[in-house]
Amino acid sequence: MSLPLGFRYAATYAGIRKVQKNDLALIVSEAPASAAAVFTKNRVVAGPVTVARRNLRVSRGRMQAILANAGNANCATPTSESVAQQSVCVAGGTLGIAPHYVFPASTGVIGVELDPQKIVAALPGLKSALDPGSFDAAAAAILTTDTRSKTAFAQLRGGKVTVAGMAKGSGMIHPRMATTLAFVMTDAVVPPAVLRTALKQGIERSFNRISVDGDTSTNDTVAVFANGASKVTPAAKAFAEALAEVLASLAQQIVKDGEGAHKFVTIEVRGAASDLAAEKIARSIANSPLVKTAIAGSDPNWGRILSAAGNAGVAFNPLHTDIDMQGVPVCRGGFAADFSEDELKKKLDASECSIQFTLRGRGRGQTRFWTCDLTEEYIRINASYRT
Amino acid sequence: MSLPLGFRYAATYAGIRKVQKNDLALIVSEAPASAAAVFTKNRVVAGPVTVARRNLRVSRGRMQAILANAGNANCATPTSESVAQQSVCVAGGTLGIAPHYVFPASTGVIGVELDPQKIVAALPGLKSALDPGSFDAAAAAILTTDTRSKTAFAQLRGGKVTVAGMAKGSGMIHPRMATTLAFVMTDAVVPPAVLRTALKQGIERSFNRISVDGDTSTNDTVAVFANGASKVTPAAKAFAEALAEVLASLAQQIVKDGEGAHKFVTIEVRGAASDLAAEKIARSIANSPLVKTAIAGSDPNWGRILSAAGNAGVAFNPLHTDIDMQGVPVCRGGFAADFSEDELKKKLDASECSIQFTLRGRGRGQTRFWTCDLTEEYIRINASYRT
Repeated sequence: MSLPLGFRYAATYAGIRKVQKNDLALIVSEAPASAAAVFTKNRVVAGPVTVARRNLRVSRGRMQAILANAGNANCATPTSESVAQQSVCVAGGTLGIAPHYVFPASTGVIGVELDPQKIVAALPGLKSALDPGSFDAAAAAILTTDTRSKTAFAQLRGGKVTVAGMAKGSGMIHPRMATTLAFVMTDAVVPPAVLRTALKQGIERSFNRISVDGDTSTNDTVAVFANGASKVTPAAKAFAEALAEVLASLAQQIVKDGEGAHKFVTIEVRGAASDLAAEKIARSIANSPLVKTAIAGSDPNWGRILSAAGNAGVAFNPLHTDIDMQGVPVCRGGFAADFSEDELKKKLDASECSIQFTLRGRGRGQTRFWTCDLTEEYIRINASYRT
Repeated sequence: MSLPLGFRYAATYAGIRKVQKNDLALIVSEAPASAAAVFTKNRVVAGPVTVARRNLRVSRGRMQAILANAGNANCATPTSESVAQQSVCVAGGTLGIAPHYVFPASTGVIGVELDPQKIVAALPGLKSALDPGSFDAAAAAILTTDTRSKTAFAQLRGGKVTVAGMAKGSGMIHPRMATTLAFVMTDAVVPPAVLRTALKQGIERSFNRISVDGDTSTNDTVAVFANGASKVTPAAKAFAEALAEVLASLAQQIVKDGEGAHKFVTIEVRGAASDLAAEKIARSIANSPLVKTAIAGSDPNWGRILSAAGNAGVAFNPLHTDIDMQGVPVCRGGFAADFSEDELKKKLDASECSIQFTLRGRGRGQTRFWTCDLTEEYIRINASYRT
């Protein structure tokens, strides 16, 4: 898949994380790009999120560079915001652009000072390394407990326009309006207002429909840059669909790489009173540790699914509930369906599992939600993340 | 500790659970007792909960027997309510009391038919076995994945009045108004209305302040019986305190025996705008898998505590936040305090851990909440619960 025109990428090891693995990424557009972003809804917000939000406002939705580090969230320290501000100032100076055209992002441990000198010292080398082909290197440099890179691509207008996205995220994943870090670049000509709308729509069907562990991070950021280098202006709807496709792929890749996850679980809810009610039910199922451990153990324990749905804070009649796992009816009208437990257990050994939760009746609310199983590895990873 | 007068207990193996371990308990008061109970808030409600609630209403808060089984929740089956109804009818007949004086309760797997004949066949033997000293046998018969019995006692009026409680619960613990099964017997003279008020108050500071895994069960029930056999009428306030003491002890024992739990964690929140705001913050910290795994790993990762609080849906200023772990300041004004990580790690190896979350300012809202750590054992237990 070709990359969007007019973007260059670079990555380096700036010494921010202990392991010697690239931890600083720079993405630069040849000209100011239309930009839109969504951020965490956590009350505790990292400095780079504050600065990125302010820069987007000051620049009226134009942005030219992304500076992202892994290994330190630059959050909950006295210098959090000033370190982020200093980083964008020095990056702007190094690149010869206004500081408010630089979009900062950080991910990693919370509450530990980030030494700005590490970033300042790395910037000249990063600038020299900028290359249109280094997309994958940048995508790798923003990872933390991820076991693999997450990238996704789409094309429009017969290949004349390209959308390319990268994301990181494996734990502390329970985004409400955005998640973790994801950057999408496109060479389409798209005005900022159209970009904002397309991002908002796409997020609702991707990053806002996944959960690994029910924790929402302090640094969640999804940003999209459209630099117009293809000189092609796609139809707003076609562009929104291409963007949504890239975002959905990235979101699914995050769940598939969920900390300790062995299985990817798709939850579909239908027949609810509203889409919001469907979402609440799906979220409650997706966040139930008992459902997630049952999936890990290939246990067709549909009672836990029904019980988790009952905790969603949504009114429904259990006697009008049907549940299917892997396409096999396990619950009909709130009671056990007639199915072979042994056969279904074998089907649940697959790496992709599905849960369909259907309310009989006239409700038209529905949603699709993605999560993963909960395994002993999740505990091992998180009991020793810092140490 | 002596037991309350006028109660007899029995337990037997009725063949409801696969393992041959007592699974049916009967508790009988010599005369109808004042009774009060609180039940699950899950939308999916087990048949025995429906029947118990109706019996309490029909009998206007009088009750004479408890019939409780483990190994099957008698929930989400077509016969759920009729099996519960049949059980109380036959139990009433066997004991020579009205069916609506029998309080049914079930715990175990959801969605599997409970064969009423097993209970019917066991009742005559249970009746013959009734004995004032078999309290512990009854307490053991209601356990499922619990590794130990939970009992608690209090006395009033210089030992003239006794309050004795038993509970079960280890997983699917996240009560909102009640949890799991708990039965409290007292020989105090207490009118039903006073009993209801005392139970409601006591629950708020005990069963409504614990969480193991964020899942609320379909069968949660806490019931208290006061049969007046001591012929002593304690002051309402003194009785409420004794009851609250027993409930708090039972609730804490449930958390200490949380599935796979190695550590008991007390979370105190102070300085919030209201008690409800404090409770939301405490609940969010208690339910965060990242906080719970950090405690499992003795990792003083206070950033996860702050981030979890930020997700509570409560407005607060992170810069006015202080956090202590094991009495050691780890966060002051939203930033890292100066503490020895190695020393604190050693302190966190203790079996009891404390987290204090304090908002500076004039807020007087506070709460105390209990939870446990999240270990690999929780996963092992729940990935294979049924199989």
